[in-house]
Amino acid sequence: MERRAMENFSFFNPTRIEFGTDKERLIGKGLAEHGVKKALLCYGSERIKREGLFDVVGRSLAEHDIQLVEFGGIVSNPVISRVREGIALARAEGVDAILSVGGGSVLDSAKAIAAGVRHAGDVWDLFVGKAGIESALPLFAIQTLAATGSEMNPSAVVTNDETQEKFFIASPLLFPKLSIVNPALMRGVSRDYLVYSASDVIAHLIETYFTATVQPKLQSRLVESLIITVIETTEALLANPADYAARAQFAWAATLALNGLCYSGTAGFSYPNHAIEHSLSALFNVPHGAGLSVVVPAWMKWYRARNPSQFDRFAVEVFGVDGGEQGIAALQAWYDKIGTPTRLSQLGIPADDLSAIVDNVQRNVRLFGIAETYTPEAVAEILRLAR
Amino acid sequence: MERRAMENFSFFNPTRIEFGTDKERLIGKGLAEHGVKKALLCYGSERIKREGLFDVVGRSLAEHDIQLVEFGGIVSNPVISRVREGIALARAEGVDAILSVGGGSVLDSAKAIAAGVRHAGDVWDLFVGKAGIESALPLFAIQTLAATGSEMNPSAVVTNDETQEKFFIASPLLFPKLSIVNPALMRGVSRDYLVYSASDVIAHLIETYFTATVQPKLQSRLVESLIITVIETTEALLANPADYAARAQFAWAATLALNGLCYSGTAGFSYPNHAIEHSLSALFNVPHGAGLSVVVPAWMKWYRARNPSQFDRFAVEVFGVDGGEQGIAALQAWYDKIGTPTRLSQLGIPADDLSAIVDNVQRNVRLFGIAETYTPEAVAEILRLAR
Repeated sequence: MERRAMENFSFFNPTRIEFGTDKERLIGKGLAEHGVKKALLCYGSERIKREGLFDVVGRSLAEHDIQLVEFGGIVSNPVISRVREGIALARAEGVDAILSVGGGSVLDSAKAIAAGVRHAGDVWDLFVGKAGIESALPLFAIQTLAATGSEMNPSAVVTNDETQEKFFIASPLLFPKLSIVNPALMRGVSRDYLVYSASDVIAHLIETYFTATVQPKLQSRLVESLIITVIETTEALLANPADYAARAQFAWAATLALNGLCYSGTAGFSYPNHAIEHSLSALFNVPHGAGLSVVVPAWMKWYRARNPSQFDRFAVEVFGVDGGEQGIAALQAWYDKIGTPTRLSQLGIPADDLSAIVDNVQRNVRLFGIAETYTPEAVAEILRLAR
Repeated sequence: MERRAMENFSFFNPTRIEFGTDKERLIGKGLAEHGVKKALLCYGSERIKREGLFDVVGRSLAEHDIQLVEFGGIVSNPVISRVREGIALARAEGVDAILSVGGGSVLDSAKAIAAGVRHAGDVWDLFVGKAGIESALPLFAIQTLAATGSEMNPSAVVTNDETQEKFFIASPLLFPKLSIVNPALMRGVSRDYLVYSASDVIAHLIETYFTATVQPKLQSRLVESLIITVIETTEALLANPADYAARAQFAWAATLALNGLCYSGTAGFSYPNHAIEHSLSALFNVPHGAGLSVVVPAWMKWYRARNPSQFDRFAVEVFGVDGGEQGIAALQAWYDKIGTPTRLSQLGIPADDLSAIVDNVQRNVRLFGIAETYTPEAVAEILRLAR
């Protein structure tokens, strides 16, 4: 397989990132610069109120005479039923922007609301391709967790809680106008969510790296730089959660992992690990990153023979070990060491009957356009390697 | 010195890049999307006419009923007298956009014209800080040389041919709306300009990497990835100028070297090598990259003791050798190998009396804000190391 050429591409990422301490105080000014008068403030738990962030945001908006409408209680693995509620509220209140304060689940819900408000039919139409995204309210974000990269990309993942489908949307209209990333706001992230986030970022980086049919060395080097950074800073944060420099580099690596940089010039890549994990999340509501650290090593074992030189490269460049198998083992050992699951049993998923998962995955792989490779037999084999 | 923290930063880069073969055919559409009716087409030599690019651009513009006004003959180390001519022509013709077709010199001239057209006084005012850039015509670019990174950044360097000052401007208004980077259009770049370009890109990467007082490891890794890519692809292109994958990676590395990515989160960096080299170009009209490959190794020898750990890191990560001195020697040897100058004498610059250069550099280091470190004695010492 030719993996040295470079594919034609477009790179366009108009999101403004304000990164660093106290940057959340710029949010009112940022909204005002886009003429916003009334924003739907999406958030998750009440933590942002307890920790004072809510007040900072409220004051910043008030200084610019911007009204806010609260829409809280968004949970991880966000669901379309709540998105529909958000759309109804946004319409009833006549907001002219959506502001997300939280992690990737809140922002992805906010993106779905921003697009859904401007779509006459049901918002799920946009996820299943029944309708395209023709318009969206302007989006703004303050991130309190670094993982999904949603703050600087145009896509969102939401679960349909009726059909147990975890699907995605993407449109240039869904780039946030402004995303504020203050690593200090991430100080309160739990140990578990830190390691799940590390797993999520690594999965974003690995999917393209191994599956692309066109993967120039330049892009491989960028990916390796980011993976090494995630490994190093995760360990630093587990040792000392107050290490600002580590948290900042972790956060920026998470953003760069999925903002277009790493796949500019690559081609033919796919997201099989996400396709499989989305079913684990949809069926068992496991945290996305925890599901990924189970799926990824199993998938790597299954996939290695299809791209052996890249697995050899990964082993040497990321872990300094020789041979693709050793590289996979090193990653799995690292997941074990930091305490993110690597076995289905650790997720509490019964591994004796995998058929429900295999069935659910088939909907995802069709959506991701990779059903030909990821047949039920192949998915079952990957899941067996994760037992 | 603390070099591990991460500085607050803003990242905003709204330039759309269209990268790859045949992308120049999109130029008419790109201008039309911004409502352009009449563009000033800036270019350098007649090569773009001989090689057919001019016709492709003309047809693409005609398809969208966009008129073009020719402004050719822009030379490397572009001069402000020509910029003034361009401004006069742009005003006389009432163009509503500037289109650059060429390398960094053409694009930097185009940027100065775009800002100068909207400035009531003399355009040089904008370079010396007598006036700010309040407005600019929209800019578009088709790159035929990869080196300066100007295609995805908001700055420009021009020489005042009366005062022999090589100064710069920067403003968010100078981000091109659209830059087309087709590596196939760079196939005709001469051997000399290829190696000068490699030197220029490496200098862009090295300046921040060594001088920043805040330089997180993440950013060091990105820089090293790009330097290694430049080294590898330059060698590939010297062996085979038709190697598209190498030329493409070289070009994208050049863009990423100076589009904001590598210095996001860094602080306290400066551009001493550019400050010194600009005087060589201004006084002796040497190619910028050739001047830089002379200055950089000399500066590294002079500067190493101020940041020894980063020089040690550079040696290991880029050249796989131990010790900062060995790293510098390896870079200089590589410059010698590819055939870009490393001695003032190779530039035809008399090295017995350096006082005219030292004097000229003092204007630059004041402009760059580094006059305290780069005293006449220090600059003379660096230049002596380059003899």
